[in-house]
Amino acid sequence: MTSKHVSVRSSMTADEVLDFLRRAATQGGDAYYLYALDESGRLEGTLGLRTLVVAESSSLVRDIMQRDVIHVHTGTDREEIGRLMAAHGFQALPVVDSDGRLVGTITPDAVMSLAEEEATEDIQKLGGLEALDAPYDRTTFWPMIRKRGGWLSALFLGETLTATAMGRYEAEIARAVVLALFVPLVISSGGNSGSQAASLVIRALALNELRLRDWLRVLRREVSSGLALGTALGAIGFARIVIWHSLGVSDYGEHALSLAATIAISLVGIVSFGTLAGSMLPFLLLRFGFDPATSSTPFIATLVDVTGLIIYFQVASVVLRGTLL
Amino acid sequence: MTSKHVSVRSSMTADEVLDFLRRAATQGGDAYYLYALDESGRLEGTLGLRTLVVAESSSLVRDIMQRDVIHVHTGTDREEIGRLMAAHGFQALPVVDSDGRLVGTITPDAVMSLAEEEATEDIQKLGGLEALDAPYDRTTFWPMIRKRGGWLSALFLGETLTATAMGRYEAEIARAVVLALFVPLVISSGGNSGSQAASLVIRALALNELRLRDWLRVLRREVSSGLALGTALGAIGFARIVIWHSLGVSDYGEHALSLAATIAISLVGIVSFGTLAGSMLPFLLLRFGFDPATSSTPFIATLVDVTGLIIYFQVASVVLRGTLL
Repeated sequence: MTSKHVSVRSSMTADEVLDFLRRAATQGGDAYYLYALDESGRLEGTLGLRTLVVAESSSLVRDIMQRDVIHVHTGTDREEIGRLMAAHGFQALPVVDSDGRLVGTITPDAVMSLAEEEATEDIQKLGGLEALDAPYDRTTFWPMIRKRGGWLSALFLGETLTATAMGRYEAEIARAVVLALFVPLVISSGGNSGSQAASLVIRALALNELRLRDWLRVLRREVSSGLALGTALGAIGFARIVIWHSLGVSDYGEHALSLAATIAISLVGIVSFGTLAGSMLPFLLLRFGFDPATSSTPFIATLVDVTGLIIYFQVASVVLRGTLL
Repeated sequence: MTSKHVSVRSSMTADEVLDFLRRAATQGGDAYYLYALDESGRLEGTLGLRTLVVAESSSLVRDIMQRDVIHVHTGTDREEIGRLMAAHGFQALPVVDSDGRLVGTITPDAVMSLAEEEATEDIQKLGGLEALDAPYDRTTFWPMIRKRGGWLSALFLGETLTATAMGRYEAEIARAVVLALFVPLVISSGGNSGSQAASLVIRALALNELRLRDWLRVLRREVSSGLALGTALGAIGFARIVIWHSLGVSDYGEHALSLAATIAISLVGIVSFGTLAGSMLPFLLLRFGFDPATSSTPFIATLVDVTGLIIYFQVASVVLRGTLL
């Protein structure tokens, strides 16, 4: 909220207001801008109505106008326009073509609608569906099913790789069924941590808080984050199994401690991998000209699930060799 | 982009521009608004600078001002303000307190920043973490770990229920290890479809395209969507198992067809449940005064995973009784 407005009493006359305006003119502030053009329509300057009203009658516009007008080009992107508007507190910005000719103005509300549409698209893509391009209520049944079904089927086909991956460990599962019980738990942690990292990076890229060149810095940071988060979850997982087993809530057999160690070590690996995949995939998509938001939460979960299974069963085959396996 | 701007040549004099303005005044359009107040500071009307300039000198403001000013209250929410601005093409709106006294104006850029912050918060919550309140780069390591670790741990604890649920079917898994191979595949479909539905509903609620009272209409619609999507995935799943088995890529034993039927039927149930849970949870949260965006993708996945396991093993115990089980 701002207090940059001019108030007059309803009992004042127009003359008094004009007088008041003349006296207040030196205070500056935002006003109604006139644009000054040269003979070929190129933008040369702006002129506040206030400046105009207080000027000598015989003054030329070019002598009283403000040069170096903050303006945008027909190709300027939405974030850049938003930043310019925010930085200069302007009401509307003039738009010029490649020859510098004024072609119109862009208002904050136009930028606002555009920003809202872009956020909606990103949120829908992050949710793992094609952007709807229309409000929920105005999208009819079959187009909606297509927008959702396409991605859902693609993700499903990707996820069938988990069945293939688990098939390779069928013998291990047969020998130690207890291993299967923790599959959803350990792999979902990879998806969740990946989803967090991806949302952060995608939004930061959309707002230009991060750029493509920042990927290495983000990578370094997310390696530490992944290890810290993985260690925390690993500790919780270890405690959960040991406590449940000690209390007799669940019976994980004589090798409960090795099992707990398997889960804990796997979690460190899976959460670290999830965090890394979630934070780097948006950069990778951007690098190859795709929308970073395409690296949706479901997409990352699918990717991370397969890797998670492999990490889990590989850790198990090392830790549990000679005991459970 | 709009062409509502006034252009003057830089070779014109101030007098000519003022003359031009006087002649153009009847065209209306957006201008620089003055607010008219009564003796106690209450907003009574607005006065365009153009109206003022063209009025008789002796006119009273109250006689020439525009009454019924579009204004907002100190408590009006961001979406409502955005809608008002967009609907009326205003540059800024006056803000009044509960007594109708003018306390300031709100500009489109203020609303724009607010909208951007809200979208960022929603995206981060949807990604399954606490909103950061600051750009990624300006959030230091430990606060970041806390914002992510808190939710990640909560989700992990929730997800331990999958181990409990699977524990109840340990005997079935021991008898038919092949059942375990499809666990990640079938439960992830519930999470994915729930994530799609939740993103759609959360964004529509944020933009006021949907209101709390619309829940029943959405429920009806999402039941159909869930069934349609579940049937589609079920068909793909059925085909995948039968084809892989026939081609000898995987060997699902003599009961491959019953297994395929189990997967297909489970998928219809799980995708329908996921879609329903994803679309209704945001309404439920809103109803009890929470932010709908809290029903993050990871949160819904966790919720749906446990139910998905139960649906899958229950379907299996019926379809495969007497054969695999």
